[in-house]
Amino acid sequence: MNYRMTAHILGQLALFIAGFMLVPFIIALVNGENTLLAFGVTIGGLTALGCVSLFSKPKDTSFNARGGFLIVALAWIGFSVVGCLPFFISGYIPDFIDALFETVSGFTTTGASILTNIEALPDSLLFWRSFTHWIGGMGVLLFVIAILPKGDASIVHVLKAEVPGPQFGKIVSKMNFTARILYAIYIVLTLLEVILLCFGGMTVFDSFIHAFGTAGTGGFSNYAASVGRFDSLYIDIVITVFMLVFSVNFNLYFLIIIGRFKDAIKSEELRWLLIVFCGATLMISLSLTLNDVYDTFWQALRYASFQSASILSTTGYVTADFATWPVFTQVVLVLLMFIGGCAGSTAGGLKVSRVMILVKNAFRAVKKEASPRSVVLVKTDKHAVSEELNGGVLAYFVLYVSMMLLSVLLVSAASNRFDFTTNLTAVVTCYNNVGPGLGGVGPTSCFYAYGGFSKIILILDMLMGRLEVLPILMIFYPKAWRLAK
Amino acid sequence: MNYRMTAHILGQLALFIAGFMLVPFIIALVNGENTLLAFGVTIGGLTALGCVSLFSKPKDTSFNARGGFLIVALAWIGFSVVGCLPFFISGYIPDFIDALFETVSGFTTTGASILTNIEALPDSLLFWRSFTHWIGGMGVLLFVIAILPKGDASIVHVLKAEVPGPQFGKIVSKMNFTARILYAIYIVLTLLEVILLCFGGMTVFDSFIHAFGTAGTGGFSNYAASVGRFDSLYIDIVITVFMLVFSVNFNLYFLIIIGRFKDAIKSEELRWLLIVFCGATLMISLSLTLNDVYDTFWQALRYASFQSASILSTTGYVTADFATWPVFTQVVLVLLMFIGGCAGSTAGGLKVSRVMILVKNAFRAVKKEASPRSVVLVKTDKHAVSEELNGGVLAYFVLYVSMMLLSVLLVSAASNRFDFTTNLTAVVTCYNNVGPGLGGVGPTSCFYAYGGFSKIILILDMLMGRLEVLPILMIFYPKAWRLAK
Repeated sequence: MNYRMTAHILGQLALFIAGFMLVPFIIALVNGENTLLAFGVTIGGLTALGCVSLFSKPKDTSFNARGGFLIVALAWIGFSVVGCLPFFISGYIPDFIDALFETVSGFTTTGASILTNIEALPDSLLFWRSFTHWIGGMGVLLFVIAILPKGDASIVHVLKAEVPGPQFGKIVSKMNFTARILYAIYIVLTLLEVILLCFGGMTVFDSFIHAFGTAGTGGFSNYAASVGRFDSLYIDIVITVFMLVFSVNFNLYFLIIIGRFKDAIKSEELRWLLIVFCGATLMISLSLTLNDVYDTFWQALRYASFQSASILSTTGYVTADFATWPVFTQVVLVLLMFIGGCAGSTAGGLKVSRVMILVKNAFRAVKKEASPRSVVLVKTDKHAVSEELNGGVLAYFVLYVSMMLLSVLLVSAASNRFDFTTNLTAVVTCYNNVGPGLGGVGPTSCFYAYGGFSKIILILDMLMGRLEVLPILMIFYPKAWRLAK
Repeated sequence: MNYRMTAHILGQLALFIAGFMLVPFIIALVNGENTLLAFGVTIGGLTALGCVSLFSKPKDTSFNARGGFLIVALAWIGFSVVGCLPFFISGYIPDFIDALFETVSGFTTTGASILTNIEALPDSLLFWRSFTHWIGGMGVLLFVIAILPKGDASIVHVLKAEVPGPQFGKIVSKMNFTARILYAIYIVLTLLEVILLCFGGMTVFDSFIHAFGTAGTGGFSNYAASVGRFDSLYIDIVITVFMLVFSVNFNLYFLIIIGRFKDAIKSEELRWLLIVFCGATLMISLSLTLNDVYDTFWQALRYASFQSASILSTTGYVTADFATWPVFTQVVLVLLMFIGGCAGSTAGGLKVSRVMILVKNAFRAVKKEASPRSVVLVKTDKHAVSEELNGGVLAYFVLYVSMMLLSVLLVSAASNRFDFTTNLTAVVTCYNNVGPGLGGVGPTSCFYAYGGFSKIILILDMLMGRLEVLPILMIFYPKAWRLAK
């Protein structure tokens, strides 16, 4: 393990987090909020830490894939711990594990909350809470890479660990340039949403909060009723569209920018995302209409499309309490949680591209048995998927399912407070970085009632979901530390 | 498709089913029950059908793997339809889909029931109901093969489709001899259990009923309270042991018979089965004790070990209403449903050998990332698993999960009567051939309240679980029919 380089990167990261925290600090200053000290102390500590690390520039700046995994995992745990300090020090979330849960939920863009009274928080904390979605959505280390002047070859190992999806495709040959393009697209789209939300009558503050939640596909709102509070068709449509926009692989936006529009819309993953969204919306709308939950099909369509986009994109905003909807719609929504958005987007879940490959493997298993002599290849975008990538996706699926089932077992072991559905969907929604579940963790409830041990398991689930399992497991695997460089 | 040969095999099967049905016919005759006509008509019809098919001996008796799959799938659907006729014609189960559900649940050794008042059935029907477990457990076609004088080479395709597990291993070179050895072990073990249960004070009739349910790992009892009705520690222990005995790969018993005792107990799959059983029993006992469900640890151990063996072996007998136990024990039991018994046993589920390979694949995914240069092989019984078998297990898992999730969606689509837990565990318990679930299909409830469409989906789930998915899917795949021979 290249400890000097790790410390150096983590130190730089501390400075960046301090920089991000200046925004809520200024809000606290302007509003004269009692969170000023909490933000000030945290920013001061981070700056001191960061400056110390800058003095010791390591001679050897290289590290390998294991090193990249460990750096990313440590970084995410590290800035979650410092990110939760404003909540904890200010006393608004007096329990440290609760504060950590809320912050990890923010950075991993889950949006699951332990707050029983969201509206009681001052603006500075509400802003910081949603800002973590925006920071974590695209990746913190990706941000560092975008800012840093030179792209070290080893940096690719960090990107592989932080950017979700079965493969990491560089857009352009230089790493830091790739990162800058991704962030530029991210910033432009976020600002566009802010402007459109302001047009709809939202305050500038609320617009930023909800744009951050949408961009990171996180789902924190500053209102307990979430997006439902605005009760505006226009706002519902804007957020629905942007939740889908941020679930698309950002490489496609780059293709559009450089004029390869046809290549972008030809993407099979994009087609699957839209088919799944439309299919789910239609099924839920029909079920809501047939069960007389809404008076007309069009009204059902409004709430169904919002909720489908929200859950599929793993955002987790709600405009209706789907825990009271027919069980069929709940099954559809839980299935959407597993799928998630596209690879290379800010969304969680298995990712559409993996689901695509898994479904094709299921078909292949049937076809192979039906005509054993014909060679059945798994293809995406009309190209055969290499056996290596295919095997990797299958192995990831097994690992993903194993860790999820283990989590359900551990979360249930710690307490007998909740029923089967609650424990199962609490893990599913945290693991896939969605936010709301069913039962005791439904859209109108929160995660407060879980005990400390269960919350720690759910925190690990959120981190595993965001970083796609392996980086977090590496921390517990001594051999990885030994072989890391 | 070799239709002549298919018709010939199905005709022979009709005669065998008629032969099996003579036993409940005699019971009805002796007891003077009003089911005599129903059994008589069914036996008459089957005999007529069988005799017609015997006249047309096909010249070409060969078929290929697809043909074997289709023959097995058609056979299972076929004798489920004729097997349900006594229930339907006698009027004790007036709805045809209900009668079919009960019979498929019997043959597939699931043990899920639609009967709201089991004790109201006459002995002949209760006997037939449990006898289907015994017939289906080892496989009906396997029985035909065991009886027939000559073993055709094509017969191996039938065995591959009917005997559960990722691989089919012939015990001895001749197919019909292999089948005879398996059936001999099956009969001896069943009779041994009957005798031991009689010693415990059960009537001969009850002993046969419960031995059939145990041997086939089915779970039908002639009492609503299941095995809990006897409230006897001795009977609990006998049935617990035999449920585990019938979850073991029958090849191991053959090894013991020919004196290779050491090879038998060295089996890694057997070790995993016992570790999972002991682990689950311990976890459930502790949870029951800590939550004060039972007064002493020993009492908790009694009910926990019975329930763990019952669910892991996919039998489904109950001695306590585990739906009222702590949620942790329910999570453990639901996880056991997925595992099931060993390959080559009468149990359902994924099978221990597959779970073993899946878990090792999860570990391999982590190890591979930690030290990418070292070759990490998946091994069972100290031998490396071939990439072909490994890939087959992974593909099966994806197919298995896909069909299960699709079933949950379809079962929920049809009705809004039950909650999420009920629909989910109804599918899980039918698909893994267990029997009881949670919520509305818990140990004290039954499947009666589901609508016809949901029942048909659950019938397909039970058949897919018993025949390991592919044979049933082949029926819906035209290309398989075209390429079958």
